[in-house]
Parts: sequence; structure tokens; C-alpha cells
Amino acid sequence: MKNKQFVIVGLGRFGSSLGRELIQLGHEVLGIDKDEEAVQEMCDVLTHAVSADCTDEEALRSLGARNFDCGVVAIGDDIQASILTTILLKDLGVKKVVAKAMSELHGRVLEKLGVDRVIYPERDMGIRVAHQLVSPNLLDYIELSKEYTIAELVVPRELNGKSLSELNPRARFGCSIVAINKPQGGVIIAPTAGDVLNERDIMVVIGTNDQIEQFELSVIR
Amino acid sequence: MKNKQFVIVGLGRFGSSLGRELIQLGHEVLGIDKDEEAVQEMCDVLTHAVSADCTDEEALRSLGARNFDCGVVAIGDDIQASILTTILLKDLGVKKVVAKAMSELHGRVLEKLGVDRVIYPERDMGIRVAHQLVSPNLLDYIELSKEYTIAELVVPRELNGKSLSELNPRARFGCSIVAINKPQGGVIIAPTAGDVLNERDIMVVIGTNDQIEQFELSVIR
Amino acid sequence: MKNKQFVIVGLGRFGSSLGRELIQLGHEVLGIDKDEEAVQEMCDVLTHAVSADCTDEEALRSLGARNFDCGVVAIGDDIQASILTTILLKDLGVKKVVAKAMSELHGRVLEKLGVDRVIYPERDMGIRVAHQLVSPNLLDYIELSKEYTIAELVVPRELNGKSLSELNPRARFGCSIVAINKPQGGVIIAPTAGDVLNERDIMVVIGTNDQIEQFELSVIR
Amino acid sequence: MKNKQFVIVGLGRFGSSLGRELIQLGHEVLGIDKDEEAVQEMCDVLTHAVSADCTDEEALRSLGARNFDCGVVAIGDDIQASILTTILLKDLGVKKVVAKAMSELHGRVLEKLGVDRVIYPERDMGIRVAHQLVSPNLLDYIELSKEYTIAELVVPRELNGKSLSELNPRARFGCSIVAINKPQGGVIIAPTAGDVLNERDIMVVIGTNDQIEQFELSVIR
Amino acid sequence: MKNKQFVIVGLGRFGSSLGRELIQLGHEVLGIDKDEEAVQEMCDVLTHAVSADCTDEEALRSLGARNFDCGVVAIGDDIQASILTTILLKDLGVKKVVAKAMSELHGRVLEKLGVDRVIYPERDMGIRVAHQLVSPNLLDYIELSKEYTIAELVVPRELNGKSLSELNPRARFGCSIVAINKPQGGVIIAPTAGDVLNERDIMVVIGTNDQIEQFELSVIR
Amino acid sequence: MKNKQFVIVGLGRFGSSLGRELIQLGHEVLGIDKDEEAVQEMCDVLTHAVSADCTDEEALRSLGARNFDCGVVAIGDDIQASILTTILLKDLGVKKVVAKAMSELHGRVLEKLGVDRVIYPERDMGIRVAHQLVSPNLLDYIELSKEYTIAELVVPRELNGKSLSELNPRARFGCSIVAINKPQGGVIIAPTAGDVLNERDIMVVIGTNDQIEQFELSVIR
Amino acid sequence: MKNKQFVIVGLGRFGSSLGRELIQLGHEVLGIDKDEEAVQEMCDVLTHAVSADCTDEEALRSLGARNFDCGVVAIGDDIQASILTTILLKDLGVKKVVAKAMSELHGRVLEKLGVDRVIYPERDMGIRVAHQLVSPNLLDYIELSKEYTIAELVVPRELNGKSLSELNPRARFGCSIVAINKPQGGVIIAPTAGDVLNERDIMVVIGTNDQIEQFELSVIR
Amino acid sequence: MKNKQFVIVGLGRFGSSLGRELIQLGHEVLGIDKDEEAVQEMCDVLTHAVSADCTDEEALRSLGARNFDCGVVAIGDDIQASILTTILLKDLGVKKVVAKAMSELHGRVLEKLGVDRVIYPERDMGIRVAHQLVSPNLLDYIELSKEYTIAELVVPRELNGKSLSELNPRARFGCSIVAINKPQGGVIIAPTAGDVLNERDIMVVIGTNDQIEQFELSVIR
Repeated sequence: MKNKQFVIVGLGRFGSSLGRELIQLGHEVLGIDKDEEAVQEMCDVLTHAVSADCTDEEALRSLGARNFDCGVVAIGDDIQASILTTILLKDLGVKKVVAKAMSELHGRVLEKLGVDRVIYPERDMGIRVAHQLVSPNLLDYIELSKEYTIAELVVPRELNGKSLSELNPRARFGCSIVAINKPQGGVIIAPTAGDVLNERDIMVVIGTNDQIEQFELSVIR
Repeated sequence: MKNKQFVIVGLGRFGSSLGRELIQLGHEVLGIDKDEEAVQEMCDVLTHAVSADCTDEEALRSLGARNFDCGVVAIGDDIQASILTTILLKDLGVKKVVAKAMSELHGRVLEKLGVDRVIYPERDMGIRVAHQLVSPNLLDYIELSKEYTIAELVVPRELNGKSLSELNPRARFGCSIVAINKPQGGVIIAPTAGDVLNERDIMVVIGTNDQIEQFELSVIR
Repeated sequence: MKNKQFVIVGLGRFGSSLGRELIQLGHEVLGIDKDEEAVQEMCDVLTHAVSADCTDEEALRSLGARNFDCGVVAIGDDIQASILTTILLKDLGVKKVVAKAMSELHGRVLEKLGVDRVIYPERDMGIRVAHQLVSPNLLDYIELSKEYTIAELVVPRELNGKSLSELNPRARFGCSIVAINKPQGGVIIAPTAGDVLNERDIMVVIGTNDQIEQFELSVIR
Repeated sequence: MKNKQFVIVGLGRFGSSLGRELIQLGHEVLGIDKDEEAVQEMCDVLTHAVSADCTDEEALRSLGARNFDCGVVAIGDDIQASILTTILLKDLGVKKVVAKAMSELHGRVLEKLGVDRVIYPERDMGIRVAHQLVSPNLLDYIELSKEYTIAELVVPRELNGKSLSELNPRARFGCSIVAINKPQGGVIIAPTAGDVLNERDIMVVIGTNDQIEQFELSVIR
Repeated sequence: MKNKQFVIVGLGRFGSSLGRELIQLGHEVLGIDKDEEAVQEMCDVLTHAVSADCTDEEALRSLGARNFDCGVVAIGDDIQASILTTILLKDLGVKKVVAKAMSELHGRVLEKLGVDRVIYPERDMGIRVAHQLVSPNLLDYIELSKEYTIAELVVPRELNGKSLSELNPRARFGCSIVAINKPQGGVIIAPTAGDVLNERDIMVVIGTNDQIEQFELSVIR
Repeated sequence: MKNKQFVIVGLGRFGSSLGRELIQLGHEVLGIDKDEEAVQEMCDVLTHAVSADCTDEEALRSLGARNFDCGVVAIGDDIQASILTTILLKDLGVKKVVAKAMSELHGRVLEKLGVDRVIYPERDMGIRVAHQLVSPNLLDYIELSKEYTIAELVVPRELNGKSLSELNPRARFGCSIVAINKPQGGVIIAPTAGDVLNERDIMVVIGTNDQIEQFELSVIR
Repeated sequence: MKNKQFVIVGLGRFGSSLGRELIQLGHEVLGIDKDEEAVQEMCDVLTHAVSADCTDEEALRSLGARNFDCGVVAIGDDIQASILTTILLKDLGVKKVVAKAMSELHGRVLEKLGVDRVIYPERDMGIRVAHQLVSPNLLDYIELSKEYTIAELVVPRELNGKSLSELNPRARFGCSIVAINKPQGGVIIAPTAGDVLNERDIMVVIGTNDQIEQFELSVIR
Repeated sequence: MKNKQFVIVGLGRFGSSLGRELIQLGHEVLGIDKDEEAVQEMCDVLTHAVSADCTDEEALRSLGARNFDCGVVAIGDDIQASILTTILLKDLGVKKVVAKAMSELHGRVLEKLGVDRVIYPERDMGIRVAHQLVSPNLLDYIELSKEYTIAELVVPRELNGKSLSELNPRARFGCSIVAINKPQGGVIIAPTAGDVLNERDIMVVIGTNDQIEQFELSVIR
């Protein structure tokens, strides 16, 4: 994957975390924020960080914003600034623009302005945390469809020492274990019937929501 | 999974999204916020929603906060209120308390106060979006370990009509396709060599970060 | 022209003047403003005037905003509210939406959102007043093209008692007098050579900008 | 028309648009505003632009305000500053002072102080826009008297290819077409019976309000 | 002197003291102030006291302001409100309008608006106190002309027991004593040579400024 | 009268007018104000003017405040600052301290702190203006006692050309005319029976309140 | 000691703690605070608690403030309110008035106004805590004079089981142990040579500062 | 007692008084406050005083905060800053941390965070002052246990000239006089029967609360 160039407008919690990770992944990031202090904190982390008013077209142009592969409007609390910055980035010709929305209505405006993706960090994280709170062994999950999920589950004490053939989730519940992460022994991809689970291993289960819930309820706790 | 009782303090974007999803998942939720308007908006969604000052011990007690299975401190911008509410919920004897942190320092205080989990919604979402921005076919992912990832990828035009045996990612890149979601045809768990990919299908790939990156780079784009 | 139904959001100086004139012209107008006092002042003037938050979709819907022929977003100082109201009116299906812009950038957003016309009252009035200030006899004008203008000019003392044949602007300057408004004697359309000008009559002249300027300079003052 | 010297106090939307147009028309303009930023933006446009407190007599005097042909008080939102500046300009001996009023009451004070013309941009623009909204083919108009108007109308599809003799508005409605602007073919002054209208041409019609309304209603739509 | 009717707008320190004294002198006073509390305090003192916005023409009219003999605009700190109220009282036809000015410029506007008298309480009191501070025996004074003053002076210990013939100010300094106020013995008008001064009596001296200063310097202290 | 040294704290309307007059009368004045701008305006008028926080003992001491003959606390709106400055001036040993009070309660505190005189400019001016408003010929007055007043009255048209013997106020009303100021002819002290009054002369009358009121009512108007 | 009546103005941390203790000691307390909420919290604790503006003489009088034995002005942050309330309580005739000072200058004003005692809670507590921090066994102390102190010290492990005759502080350091508090065995007044100290007993030592410091340093730690 | 090193965060009334006393007692103190002015005032008093944001870990570390024997969090009004600073000092490894609490809830958080001592200056001083107000001869006291107190009492006029044998408090009330401070004659430790009390001497009495109260009531006043 070739190195890309990002411009992030707004270096709050979301923007700075995003920038930090993009740098980690080997890309170039220009960070822009009105607030001097926010810029100061990120200037050793990002490729460049500058303080500027992003609703000022001239300022954006002089920063060369048009030449970036992707612009991220990560402005925290100011819907007006978010909208004006978005249209400026689009009009300057930034190839791809994604923007964070503060409300569903804000999101609709962003979509009308043609942003490539609208992000709702707090809303999406709320949903994710809800799932984790209700099934305490759930670490993370991917929703494949309305019905199917891939779940990353902690192996509970009750399953300690059980082999997959003993557990046999496929036969009993319909779902499959497609990987086991053994903290001390690495990740087993496509484990076989002889592989044994230990407490605090992490297993990846694929199946329908019902199958996974039944699996959790009967064997775990 | 038996029905649980949650109390959520703070009905901003994170708290209300969390509450809505918990209700969806069949649980009971009491929402509390200082702001009348925020309460108004959620009172038809949650089991109960009340307006109260959550740093007032008497108020929390009279709401029966102590009897809840889990308390979530989802206060948005007021670190002091977040800390004081947290200690009140802990002291009232709420079984499990999770709290949202606004900064790393805030998170350290929450941990010292004994919260069961500290959540950083904006930071975590920033990391997740970073990954999605750099590999445009990536929809979602689970980090199994520092090395291994499960990735949910859109099948690109280049792979349209290819069978898994033609593609053979295991042999060529070391990673496996453990599921295919066909928008019109349902989810195929553990697909076999004869299964064929179509553009806009979604495939779930498991492997090391390098294997998945190589797979994406060579066959996709 | 059949009676139309208008909804005006924002009852400041521009919105209330617009509403008052539409009523004058025999149409129906619903006025909406956040500010109770502004609503109070207009409730005897407009068909209906209500106080509501126009960025609240439910509020707009319950006012039946969707059934109006034309929505005017005349919000004074709050760009965010102007944008959010605009998208709500568009999404509710109001047939025609016009909106007042506070800046060129604001105007661009409104155009992207699909408003049928963007209005800049202060800017346009500035241009109009500039023309009146530099030619003191100019009362009003229509710019037909970059070159041609119709000008409404006060007849100065110097021309008192002159007949059109004496003045002969067509021959001397290339421009024509297409109408004369005689305060005591009504409007003469297409005046003939024998018609006489009197001080303080108003004449309507059509021609190129240069012709009209030459006419003004030589005969007037 | 000889070059004149203007001083504009207040460089908001109205003042800056006015200044820009006066410069365009070949005059000299000194712009004054309390706000450094507003001055910055106009300093390349106007002859001079300076930041000063216009309620400070000494400041106005030292800027040579007394020597200008015309002073425009275009202050946006501060009635007190508008009034104090107006009296200072008058007392300094500026020949002609025009001022923008924020309300009818403000306008009365300005008139008592002897300003030569009080301008109500938002109010006047509201009236103008009202007329355009109710007759959608109307681009602009001049009110000659309570009864007579000159209207600039777009030629609608229904009249495409019609000659003036076919249309014959004089005979049928009493109003006359005094000019036609053909986008590709220039402006025809005093068109004759053989001239043909095409869709999207612009015609200038003179007549009573009723005559023009009847004309619009019957032949247009 | 027949009973008059006053309306005082602004019940701050100046307005309420003025109102209280007018009542004392047997006249009728309507007091108006925006501030409920200020009205509350004066409602037992004045004939009527009401809370109203005095820049609202309708409000003033409904209070019958037009029927008063004299309107006093005693608004404390808001120049704009002072000016707008003044013009409303004038336009309503109040016979005599006096207004308090906060600055010399404010005073000039008030004069242009036609107020019958502009009052500068702080400025005038500053001048009066200055005179009292420099001649410590001076209680009060009237400036008859640039040269002549009537001064009310405390009789100092040095003059205790002296008769006017001994003191003889007319012969020695040119000024005359026209009255003596003896705390225990009443006021002596036009005292004669035999009248005797006692310490703490108050004498009224008339003369030029120099004469009175010389008198004070030589005989007093 | 020898030259004295004053320190004035607070250069608002009262303080600056007082300072200006003291300088006029030939004394030295140090003006102190927190506000740089107020100091700037007075620095050419007073002997010295400095910007300092007057509740800071060290600041006052370093300005040499202790050596002044008289300190005037003329602080406008901040009761706390007024009180703290007063005690500092007293404790520093300023010989005489006078202070302006904003309310009767404030005045009581100042008296308890030992100030030599408490001044109420707005209240006293309110009383003075009340008298002038009710008797329109009254220019100024001194209240000698509860009963006796010296009044400075404009001579009305009705008395034009009357000699004092004709008028004979002593006999008819009990009050005496002790001086006449003739605009073109200087001041006549102790006028005699032959002296004649002219319209717009100013006469000084001494008598009881009733005598003067009777005099005004019968002969004047 | 007969029951006394206190009025406390200001129910912040200091005032409410003071009131609570006075009630504990069997006295009657009326608490007054501007803030409704502060009053609410104390109304079950104090004899009476009311919300009122304490700079309003009428309010204080109607509360019967004059009849109290002692008034405490415990206002937290508003020096002006503290001073005005103090003078009102004094003028109403409250027998004894004590007041909390926010600064040394504030304290001087309070003394000038005649308060019976000025209290500096934060300053005094700072001094007390300083002593406790430097000698970690010190629980509390009374300063008898500049030289002599009574100290309440925890008995350290090193002295466990020692009798007073062994320890002999009088002979070795010059200071005496006048009491021992044995957590399980009560207080021994004037202990004798045979009494034995145990770890965590508390002993009361009297002596000069040096004697006590030497005693602490040599035997303790 | 060896010299210790203290760091005090917050130089308000409590913090600065504490710092001043620690310096007095011969220790080293670093004072830190956000407010420049507070630092300025203490920089001549403390060993060092610097202005810094104490919720900034890097700032605290660079000040060497970790090397201090004791950290005092004396922040006045900002609970959040108090908590964040406390955790930073603890995490940096400061040996002993004491912190001032603004409320009981704040105190509970501080305890959970592991501070060695929570201080409530206003609350404790309120209690102490309550005791002094109810027994007017009480200067200070130490509470030995719930029952026993050491009281420092002023000798009243009634006891002037009495010898301890005459007074005999032990026999009559059960309490003992363990010291007498004679203003002119030094402190008598363990006074004997022949020692005589004089008015305004100060005596230290030890006994139960009841004994001391009885003693005060019967012999004193």
C-alpha cells in the first residue's frame, strides 16, 4: 500500500487519535486547528501541524490542501465551521473528504455537500460498548449482516481444558470457532478438533447472532 | 442471556447511543442527565429517563441507583462531574461501573477510583477510522493480537467471478477467507474452493497484518 | 396570478419586510422565528406567525411546512441555523427554497444544498446605493446587460421647459427617453417630440452606460 | 461625471459592497472600521482603509474626514455608534451624509440629525425580493409611480418564436415592450413589430401594474 | 405655582432623587424604568412608577406620556436608549424635554434632537465640589458672572464676637455681607453695622472672586 | 489661598470634572485610575495622571499619596474598591479624605471609616434640577436654612423697564433684591430704588421660600 | 452557660460548619444566605434558615436580626457584601459582631467598622497545618506564648512500654507530660512516674518550643 | 528535626499561609500556582515560587516535584484541578501528599486516590470558632477525647487576686489548672496552691467538658 497524504482539520480527541494512527501506519499527515495549544501538542507527532482558520479559503489554499489524497474534517463542536471547511476542501479539489457529524441533521448536510463518508464516533462507539456490556466475554465483534456476526470472546473458566471436539459448537449451536489466540502460544488459524481451549484464551466465533448467544449462554456461565 | 439493568449518567451522543442499543438488545436502562431537554428526547426510548444532578448523593440514592447491574458514567465535558458521579456510584454499591474518559489523565483517576472499564470513544474511533481510510476496501476489523487481524473487506471489481481456488490466498499470501457475505445470497461460513467471489461481496479474511496487506495490494487494485 | 403560500423562517429586518410585502401583494405567509418578541410584532401582519426552533425537524413538520409553495430562509446571523433549516425545508419537500446568505462561502453551501436562489441583501443594496450616490439624479435603474441600462432620472432645473425635440437625446447621445412621470400629470409612455420636461419630472432613459453618462454630464449640471 | 471622494464608516456586508462598487465606478473611497480584520480585507480594494474608533472626534478629524464629498455611515449593529458618528461627520462639515438605519426609530433620529438620506438595505431588499418571488419571470423592476412599473421579464417558452406583431401587448393589454435583450444578439432598443422573441430573451415592459400582471398571466404560463 | 406633571424615564440615583424632590415640592411624577426592582423601590414615593421599555413607542403612548408638562430622560448608562427615548418623547409632543448626558458628544446629539436642556450631573457636581474643597469655609455659591459670586461661608473662630463695623469688609475688601444665618437665632437679612458674628454662624458674601478670596485669606485663618 | 495638593482616585465623569476645575483654580492634582484610557485623556489636563490599582497599598504608597493635602475617592461603580481605597488613604495619613457614595448604605460605611465628607453627586444634582424645573426662571439657588433661600432669577418680559421702587418686593412680598446682573452692564451690588430691571437681566433675591414663591407667582408670569 | 441566639450570614463551608457546631452545643442559630440552595441544605440543621439579600436593611430588620446575641458575617467571596452586611448588623444593634476576612485589607476595614473579632479561617488553618506537617506526631497544639506550647503528641513505637520515670522528660528536656489519653483506658490527668506509655496513646506535653522539639527529636524517631 | 522539602500547589489564602509558616519553621518550600500574580506575591517569601499548570504532568516533572518530602494540594476552587494534581503528585512518587477538600464528596475522592491526609480548613475553623463564641473566655482548646478537653481561658476580673488554694478547682469542679501565662511574668508550668491569678492572665485548664463548663459558669461571670 503506497504512502498517502492526509490533511486533518480539527485536532481534538478524535482528530489527534486518527492522525497518530495514520502516522503509525506509515502515512503523511498535515494537522490543522484554530487552537495554538492543540497544534503544539501534535507538532512532534504529525508530519506537519499548523494553526489556521479553516473557514478561510486563502489559508487552506496556501497550505496546499488541494494536493492531499484525503481530507478529514474532525472539528469537534462547531457545526458551522465543520460545514464551511467541508465545502472548501471539496471545492479545492481534495480527492476524498470524510467528515465527523455531531448530529443526524449535520450528517445529512455533509452528505448533500458530497462528503465521501460521514463518521459518528460517539454514536458508533456507544453501539459497540453496548454489545460488550451485555456479554461480558465479548471483546470485539464484526457485524457481517443483520444476522451474522464474528465475535471475539474470552474463554471462561468453565471451558478450561476442553478440546474443540468435546465442545463441538458447530454441532450443538451451529456456530464455528475460526481462530484461537493463546496469549503465550500465538494464534491458531482454523483450529482442529484436537486443539484445546484454556481459560483466558481468546476465541473467534462465527455464526448467527442467535447461535452465538446460545453458545455463550449454555457453555459460558 | 438474562435481562440486565443499566443506569447511564449523561445522555449526550455517546450515552444516548449506548442506551438506545441496550434497549434494542432487550435490557432495561435508566438514563439520567442534568439537562431537561436531553432527558425529554430519550424518555420514549429508554425504560426511564430523569433529570437530576448526579453529583448529589441523595438524588442518586432516591433513584435507586444502587440496585443496577451496571452503571455507565457517560458525562461529556465535565471532568469533575464525571469523577464525583463515579465515586458516588461505586460507594452506592453498583456492581459494575464503566466510565468514559476525556483525557489520559482523567482515565488514570477513574482507574484509581476502581472503575471496571475506562472508555475512550473518540480515541478508539480515531484508530478504527485510520485503518479504514488507508485500506479503502476495509469495512471493519478485529485486532486478534499485535500480529493477527480479522478483516472484513469489500470484494473489488478485479476479483469479480474468481473462485477461491483461483485466488488461493492461503497458498499465495498465507491468509484465509473464513466467510463470504453475498448481499443477495446470504453468508457462507467456511467457504470452499469452488465458491466464487462477486464484486461487492464482502469477504472475511484472517491472517497476519503483513499477509492481509500483501493480499490487498496484489489482488486488489 | 393565483394566491401562493409562503413560509418565511427568520423575521428580522429582511424577513419581516419581505413578509409584509407578500401579504400586500395578496399572498399567504407563515412566519417563524425563535424569538418570541419578533413573532409578536408580526402576528397581526402575517397570516400566521409562530415561535419555533427551525432546526427541529419535528417542529417544522408539525407546522405543515411541507405544503408551502415557497420557503424563504431569512435567518439573520446564525449560519448554522440557516444551513440546517435549509436542508430541512428541502427534505420536507418544499417546492422552492430561497435563502439569504451572510457571506460568499455561506452562499456556496446553500447552492450545494440545492436552494433555488441565494439572496445577498446587504451586498446588492450596497451596489445599488453606490450608483445612486455617484449620479445624484438617479433614482433607480435596471441593468439590462453589461452595457445597457434603464435609468430613472430626476429632471434637473437646467432642463425645465425643454421639449424632447430640443433635447433630442437620441441624436446627440444615442439614448432614448421611453417614459416621463409628471408628478401632477401622470405617466407618459413613449413620449413624443412635442412633450415638454419640467423640473422634478422623472424621466426613464434607456441606452448604454456611456450614453447615459454623457447625457447626464452635458445636459444635467 | 468627475471623480468624487467618499468616506465609508463601517465595512460590513453593506459598507464593503458599497465601497467596492464606488471604486469600480472610478471614485476614491476611504473605509473606516473599528475591526482590524474588516479593514485588512478591504485595504487592497479601497483607496485607503484604516482602523479607528469613529465616535472619537479627534480620530475622524485626523483622517481628514471633513474634506470628503460624501460620508456614508454604514455601521452594522450599534445604533449608538451610528448616531454618534453621524453627528461627528455632520459637525466636521462633510457635504453630504447618508446613513443606514437599523429600525424605523433609528431612522427618525438620523433624519433629525440632518442626514441627507436614510437607507434601509434589508427592508428595501425584502420588498424587491417579494415582487420577484410572486412573479417568477420578473428579474428586476422600477416603480415609476404607484400605478406604473417598468418590469424586466424573462421570455418564457410559450412565447418562443413569436413576433411582437403576433404578441401585440399594446393592443391586448395596454403595455409596451421597450427593449429586448437577446443573450447572443445584444440589446434591441425600441423593438419593432417584426422583432421576434426567443425563449430566455429578456424583455423590458412598461405599463400599469394591472396591465403587466394581465400580460404575464395570459401569455406567460 | 400650579401643580405640574412630570414623567421621568430612568430611576437611577439621579432620576429617583429628582423625582423624590419634585413630589416634595408638590408636583405629580410618573417614573418609568426597565428594571422592575428600581420601580419597586420608587412606587411608594412617586405618584406612579411603572416598568416599561422606553424605546418602545407603543409603551410610551399607552402610558399617556404625551400629556405630561415635562419629560426628563434620566437614563444612566445606555446612550442609545437615552437618544431613542428622547426622540420618542419629542415626537409624542411632550411640551418640555430635558435629558441627562453621559458625554459631551451625547450632549450634542441631544441638543440636535431639540431637548430644552441638557444636564451633566457628575460634571457640574465636580465643579461645585472643587470650589468647596479649596476654600474650606465655603458651603455653597452662585456664580453671578465670570467675575461676581455669592458665597455662603462658615464664620471661623477668628471672627467670633466681631461686629460688622469692626470687620468692615466693604471698605477693606470691596465685598458685602448680605445675610447672616445664626443657627440658634434665625436669618438676618441685610445685616447692619452693629450685628455681631459668632463662630459657626453662616454669612452670605457678595463680591468679585478676588474680593471674596482676599476677604477669606486675610480675616479667616 | 495657598496652592494645595490633591490626589483623585477615579477619573470618571465626576473625578475628571473635579480635577479639571481644581487645576483651573490653581492647585496641583494627581489623578489615578485603573483604566489606561481614562488616564490618557486626563494626562495633559492634570499635574500628573497615572494608571494604578488603588486597592494595592504598595502602589498608593509609591505614588507618594500620603503627602497630599486632600484625597478624593471618586470611584464610579465599584463599592468594594471605593471602600478599600478609602481606608488605604486614611491609613497612609492623607490629611483630609472625601469620597463619593453610590448609595446611602455605602455612605454610612464611608462615614464609619472616618472620611471627612461624603458626596452624592447624582442625588444632590437631582434635587437642584428639581427646583429649576418647577420654577423656570430659577437659574441657581442657595438654601440658607430650611426657611430662607437666595435665588438667582431671570427677569421676565413682564418686568422689563420696571424700577425697583415700582416693583418694591420688600414691601409687597418681604424679600429683597440684593444684586442685579446686567448682561451688557455688569453686576450691581445692593441696587437702589432707582435701578431699573430689563428683560433677561438676572436678579438675586433673598427671602423665605414662601416670599420668593409669592414674588415669582404674582409678578412673574 | 445559658442558651444564646446567633445569626449567621453566609452559609458556605465556614458558616455552615460554624452553625452546625453551635446547634450541637445547644444554641439557637438563624442562617441567612442569598443562595436558595445553600439555605435548603441547612434548613433541617439550623433553628431557622432563610434566603435573603443581606445588604438590604429592611430584609435584615424584618428577620429580627437586631435581637440576636451575636452576628457572624461568614460571607465567602464578596468583600462588598461582607462590609455592607457588617455595618447593617452593627447599626441594627446586634450586641456582638464577628466577621470573616478575605484579606488583610478587608480585615482592617472590618476593624474600623467596629467588629468584635475578625476571623481568618484559611490563614489560621494554614499555620496550624504547617505545624502538624513538620512534626508528624503532632495532632494539635495551643500556643501559650511566643515561647511556650502545649502539644498533643501520638506516642511512637519507640516509647512503647516505657514508664514516665524511665522517660523522665522533665529532667532530660525540661518539659512535662500533663495528661495521657489511652484509647482503650480513658484519660489520665496529671500522670505519675509509674504510669506507662503505649504505642498510639496520646500524650499532652507542656514546655518551651525548644524543649518539646528536643523531646520529639531524641526519643521519638 | 531535620529540614524538609515541601511543594505547595495553590497559593491562595490557605496555601500561602501554610507556606509562610513552613518557611518560618525552617523548611524549604516550592510554591506553584497558575496565577502569575499569586506567584509574584509569594516569591520573596518562599524558597521558590513558579507559575505553572499543575494538571500538566510534564510541567510538574520538570519542576522536580517527585523529589519533595511532602506535597500539599491547596487549590482553592477547582475540584477538577485538585483531583488531577493529586493523582499526578502520587504517580510522580511524592512521599506524602495532603490535600484540601472543598466538600465531603471531594474528600472521599481524595481518600480513594490515596492522599495521606484530607484537610477541611473552613469546616474545622468553623467548629473551633463556634466553641470560642459560646464561651467568651476561651482562647483555644485541644479536644483530648470526646469527654476531655484542654482549654486556654482568660482569667476574668472576678478571679483577680485569687490564689489557686482559694479557687481550688480540683476539689470543687474536678478540673486542674496546669499552667498560667502571666503577660508580664512568663509562664508558670504546674502552678502550686500559692500561685495567684490576675485579671487577663491566661490559664490552661484540663478536665472533662462538663467540669470545665461548670468551672466557667460558677466562678467566671
